[in-house]
Amino acid sequence: MNFRSDNTAGASEKVLAALIAANGGSQPSYGVDEFTQRAEAKLAAVFEREVAVFLVTTGSAANSLSLACLTPPWGAVLCHAESHIYEDECGAPEFYSGGAKIIGLPGIGCKLTPEIVARQLERMPSGSLRNVQPSALSLTQSTEAGTVYSVAEISALTEVARSRGLGVHMDGARFANALLTLGCTPAEMTWKAGIDVLSFGATKNGCLAAEAVIFFDKAKSVEMAFRRKRSGHTLSKGRLLGAQLEAYLDNDHWLDLARQANRAAARLEEALLALPGVRIGWPRQANEVFAILPQEVDRRLRAAGIVYHPWSPDWVAPLDVPRSGETLYRFVASFRTTALDIDAVRRVAKEPAASR
Amino acid sequence: MNFRSDNTAGASEKVLAALIAANGGSQPSYGVDEFTQRAEAKLAAVFEREVAVFLVTTGSAANSLSLACLTPPWGAVLCHAESHIYEDECGAPEFYSGGAKIIGLPGIGCKLTPEIVARQLERMPSGSLRNVQPSALSLTQSTEAGTVYSVAEISALTEVARSRGLGVHMDGARFANALLTLGCTPAEMTWKAGIDVLSFGATKNGCLAAEAVIFFDKAKSVEMAFRRKRSGHTLSKGRLLGAQLEAYLDNDHWLDLARQANRAAARLEEALLALPGVRIGWPRQANEVFAILPQEVDRRLRAAGIVYHPWSPDWVAPLDVPRSGETLYRFVASFRTTALDIDAVRRVAKEPAASR
Amino acid sequence: MNFRSDNTAGASEKVLAALIAANGGSQPSYGVDEFTQRAEAKLAAVFEREVAVFLVTTGSAANSLSLACLTPPWGAVLCHAESHIYEDECGAPEFYSGGAKIIGLPGIGCKLTPEIVARQLERMPSGSLRNVQPSALSLTQSTEAGTVYSVAEISALTEVARSRGLGVHMDGARFANALLTLGCTPAEMTWKAGIDVLSFGATKNGCLAAEAVIFFDKAKSVEMAFRRKRSGHTLSKGRLLGAQLEAYLDNDHWLDLARQANRAAARLEEALLALPGVRIGWPRQANEVFAILPQEVDRRLRAAGIVYHPWSPDWVAPLDVPRSGETLYRFVASFRTTALDIDAVRRVAKEPAASR
Amino acid sequence: MNFRSDNTAGASEKVLAALIAANGGSQPSYGVDEFTQRAEAKLAAVFEREVAVFLVTTGSAANSLSLACLTPPWGAVLCHAESHIYEDECGAPEFYSGGAKIIGLPGIGCKLTPEIVARQLERMPSGSLRNVQPSALSLTQSTEAGTVYSVAEISALTEVARSRGLGVHMDGARFANALLTLGCTPAEMTWKAGIDVLSFGATKNGCLAAEAVIFFDKAKSVEMAFRRKRSGHTLSKGRLLGAQLEAYLDNDHWLDLARQANRAAARLEEALLALPGVRIGWPRQANEVFAILPQEVDRRLRAAGIVYHPWSPDWVAPLDVPRSGETLYRFVASFRTTALDIDAVRRVAKEPAASR
Repeated sequence: MNFRSDNTAGASEKVLAALIAANGGSQPSYGVDEFTQRAEAKLAAVFEREVAVFLVTTGSAANSLSLACLTPPWGAVLCHAESHIYEDECGAPEFYSGGAKIIGLPGIGCKLTPEIVARQLERMPSGSLRNVQPSALSLTQSTEAGTVYSVAEISALTEVARSRGLGVHMDGARFANALLTLGCTPAEMTWKAGIDVLSFGATKNGCLAAEAVIFFDKAKSVEMAFRRKRSGHTLSKGRLLGAQLEAYLDNDHWLDLARQANRAAARLEEALLALPGVRIGWPRQANEVFAILPQEVDRRLRAAGIVYHPWSPDWVAPLDVPRSGETLYRFVASFRTTALDIDAVRRVAKEPAASR
Repeated sequence: MNFRSDNTAGASEKVLAALIAANGGSQPSYGVDEFTQRAEAKLAAVFEREVAVFLVTTGSAANSLSLACLTPPWGAVLCHAESHIYEDECGAPEFYSGGAKIIGLPGIGCKLTPEIVARQLERMPSGSLRNVQPSALSLTQSTEAGTVYSVAEISALTEVARSRGLGVHMDGARFANALLTLGCTPAEMTWKAGIDVLSFGATKNGCLAAEAVIFFDKAKSVEMAFRRKRSGHTLSKGRLLGAQLEAYLDNDHWLDLARQANRAAARLEEALLALPGVRIGWPRQANEVFAILPQEVDRRLRAAGIVYHPWSPDWVAPLDVPRSGETLYRFVASFRTTALDIDAVRRVAKEPAASR
Repeated sequence: MNFRSDNTAGASEKVLAALIAANGGSQPSYGVDEFTQRAEAKLAAVFEREVAVFLVTTGSAANSLSLACLTPPWGAVLCHAESHIYEDECGAPEFYSGGAKIIGLPGIGCKLTPEIVARQLERMPSGSLRNVQPSALSLTQSTEAGTVYSVAEISALTEVARSRGLGVHMDGARFANALLTLGCTPAEMTWKAGIDVLSFGATKNGCLAAEAVIFFDKAKSVEMAFRRKRSGHTLSKGRLLGAQLEAYLDNDHWLDLARQANRAAARLEEALLALPGVRIGWPRQANEVFAILPQEVDRRLRAAGIVYHPWSPDWVAPLDVPRSGETLYRFVASFRTTALDIDAVRRVAKEPAASR
Repeated sequence: MNFRSDNTAGASEKVLAALIAANGGSQPSYGVDEFTQRAEAKLAAVFEREVAVFLVTTGSAANSLSLACLTPPWGAVLCHAESHIYEDECGAPEFYSGGAKIIGLPGIGCKLTPEIVARQLERMPSGSLRNVQPSALSLTQSTEAGTVYSVAEISALTEVARSRGLGVHMDGARFANALLTLGCTPAEMTWKAGIDVLSFGATKNGCLAAEAVIFFDKAKSVEMAFRRKRSGHTLSKGRLLGAQLEAYLDNDHWLDLARQANRAAARLEEALLALPGVRIGWPRQANEVFAILPQEVDRRLRAAGIVYHPWSPDWVAPLDVPRSGETLYRFVASFRTTALDIDAVRRVAKEPAASR
């Protein structure tokens, strides 16, 4: 009953089997092995176009390497103030970009709006040498609040960015989860909506350590091979990454895994809302539930061995903010979350009043 | 019959089995999982002291992160001119250190001597603000030429370094291979001989992607956790690294693998020397054979499907340098090299003269 | 009638004369000339203690070099969101620090409060590897809004910083102006109140290009000489800086210059407030007046050849924010501002209504 | 009798007078003052074409900012092993470029040859991700050995560079001295011979602190304004730089100053060669004399109050290297060197044998 994160599990059975199968035989090193090449071909098919693909082991590497290709050291990257690149990577984007400024913007449910982005851009007149130069916009899909940008919202945001010449990055650590929610194609959620570079996450959704940086415009990826090598993120035994990704993409396995996680989250939400006084912080749209719990409910859940993290209420809509005695918590469902896990929550809801 | 590198193979059976076994169940993320903790304990036992351990996926990351902890941005790292950190990592040490100067020094068989290091240090007077400040010495064991520093040689080098206040790093991408050659303990080859930080390599010797940065003085490792996180080298599913390392160290598995590689290299050397006109560039001391081949022998080996790389003859002793019609080549044996691989070389030696 | 900035003037007569006098004769290069040494001694006297002094030509260099000595690359510097280091140096602190995060905080009148700083520190738990580590606090005295921190306010802020181990930097681009307002000693406004490093500005107040970085704890300055050299900020003909600073400090010349500027600002404020509908954005406390002007007054002032910049109203107190038809403007008085300059403003106030 | 360096003097009378004249009146800040604009126009005339000019205070800043515009962080800059950028700037080029590799190459008299550069380029195959990518060549004119590249030599070197896509930088700290030796035009010695960016030195030749970075291809300078600002090298009171440069260029003042220095060096050489056993290390071609002195001569010169620096004999031609009892010394003549200074040397030559 661990709802702390979607990276506390190992790999899916299928991904693991692929790793085992890939182990034998000799392969060229540094990412030109056949597994990696097949994974790259699959990604081109998934996104319905030529793409430049760079596999790495972590989301921080994927995000930071992507952003470093979009901004000069004197540039600025706009993102939500609670985004992973702003809050949780110990300054990795600053390191990789040579000291660019990552600017965290507000937004309910951890979603940016065209207005918020436009307002910030107005404060940074182009041509001024005093200011760092706005160079990139980074969107997280699904967001850190488990919410999902619609295709129209993404398009509107990339349009504002493009009007000032910014490149647009998508942090897709939970890409598959958002995609299923929207029911659109990967192309529609990305390059057709104006995304230039995507961190295509796989680790949280069934791999052990595998993320793909995908450039939709190959020209923009020229520096990337050097940046990856120079940061020690080019594995010598590239099959480790290639085999995971190949299996992950094979036969819609990635979508099956995300579907399980999203469904589990839906059931989890239902179970949580059955508890007295529980309400949600933001609409659940992917595989995460942000629930505002009264202290007593929190106590009972923990007593039942259910574990989860408290979360910052900064981006809860004003009318919904936790009141005295309430706290916002994050519950994450993964492809490994089972009916038993959720039953544990349900059981707490059914406890006789006496036991309280 | 691929002697190109020791990173063209997958993982050893035992390491792979450990990965499979580690896959189930929930584990805390970011390197505090139980597998990593057991691997760390094993490393402390192997080195007979408290150590600070940081697991990463590549040797470039291990080396660069280590060096960044030993030198300020205005420092200099002394190393051999053919060392991996100088030649093969696309400037990773410069990137990680914030622009320190990596200075490549000469030395036959890719080995530095105390005199060579001392001479360089004399050129860099301490206290001068014009010069970058010598801050670290990096030794590769076994070296890029497959040669091995004796414990006395390491001690003499670290003494010169220490007399000017430099920290000493060992690039142990082929640590186990060198250790077996010397027949000493890991402690004797490292901290007892004056090494401060070790890149303990496992990828080339049976893992898929696993290297351990080991600080023998925990105090010197304070920055390391931040540097690793900030560079995206802290895996969320840390079990991937922990499980590999645990199995690698278990029951001397790492030494068994290196022993196989070293023995295969000895037989390979024997087989190569049986070919007409073949001689060695440097004494074989670990798992690599550097052979000077006449053109005709090269042709015959390639015709037999045997593959290997040409190598720079810069550090061959003057009397041994390849003459016209000769070329220096590197043959690497790994834990996967089989008798069959070597037989292929032997067969070429036995080809009837007529077939030439 | 140029009130745009205090850096549109040249040097004071006395500073210029010192430059002329210093021109002859041979001097050792790179900052060990006798002029620099005398300037350093004068600064020690001014601050009533041993100090480590580093002269540079610009405030951006002084600030960025100072901060780089206080924060590691994975650190964070807290400052006001309108501070020069955050907004106006094109990311210089990020460049010099190797990518530290500069975090802009709110505060009326561009002043931070202990509460604001403490709240931010609470969001950055120490020990978390996800977050950059709060490492330094930077205060501007006088602030970008022309306001002045009292000694008690500085002490309260440095105490919050020190409780979490942060070093404290003061950007004293207008140090003398603030000092006169407080009527305290330089020591009281700095190290006695908990400041570790000071950018002691002289350029805006009578020099051509001269700022002194002053470390009150010499131990913290060890890196500085290398950082300055490595960034090309160590002048070969150091007398240029030394002679300016020596004359600037000689016989309280710096205080005389600042007194002129502050008095001019006071008269300027008076003259502006005599115009119909004019009010101030923040209390004038040093040499800058921030006035909220009705459109018509702005038109008349400009028609009279008076020039000045509009300013961001973000940090005006809620009740004072410019209303429709009003704009906030900055007027800066310098040591060169004359009675004639201010008379020009006064004349506009006295224009017959008809002329409107 | 100080022959230690050409930066121990102040400014020329004319440059100083210009500084004084420029001091009054209000000027726009940050480099758009009229003095700077006139200096830029003069440089365009001197170089007979449109140029992009960026004034800074030091040669290290000029060189490092220039190189940062020519190389990515994963690039390499080729230069002579004794060049200022390699040896004397405490790693400034590495800092400014974000960690590029500066590679010092050999060459008698501190001059590179096309063969030496070509050989290095062959070791760095293009397309290899392991290697840093050769991106720029930097030539010093006149060199650190006081020698001068002919126009044909520069052209041959830039051709080799261009054939691999490298940009070419010239460190012209002693540009005027070399120009007079060649008797060609500034255009011929630079862009007509393939130079892309020039550090046009003025500090050593009569200014107090003024160097101009000159881009012959304006397109290559796009980043430069940001890089200069971000490093704190954009002076607020830009007249300080503009006025110096304007006077320096006015009416061939710069050439007059360099002519004085070169002539003084010629006479100094003559005087030194009149001393017993003295010979030169390299042909004197600009304003520096490198003389090999017997110990006794050195003793006598110093006894006469003449000061100068010992120099590394690494790049003396094999047949000329100092023998036991001899040392190589550098004597620098500047625009301030007088007949009296040289007479002091002559007097030592004429000392009666008895006094020895």
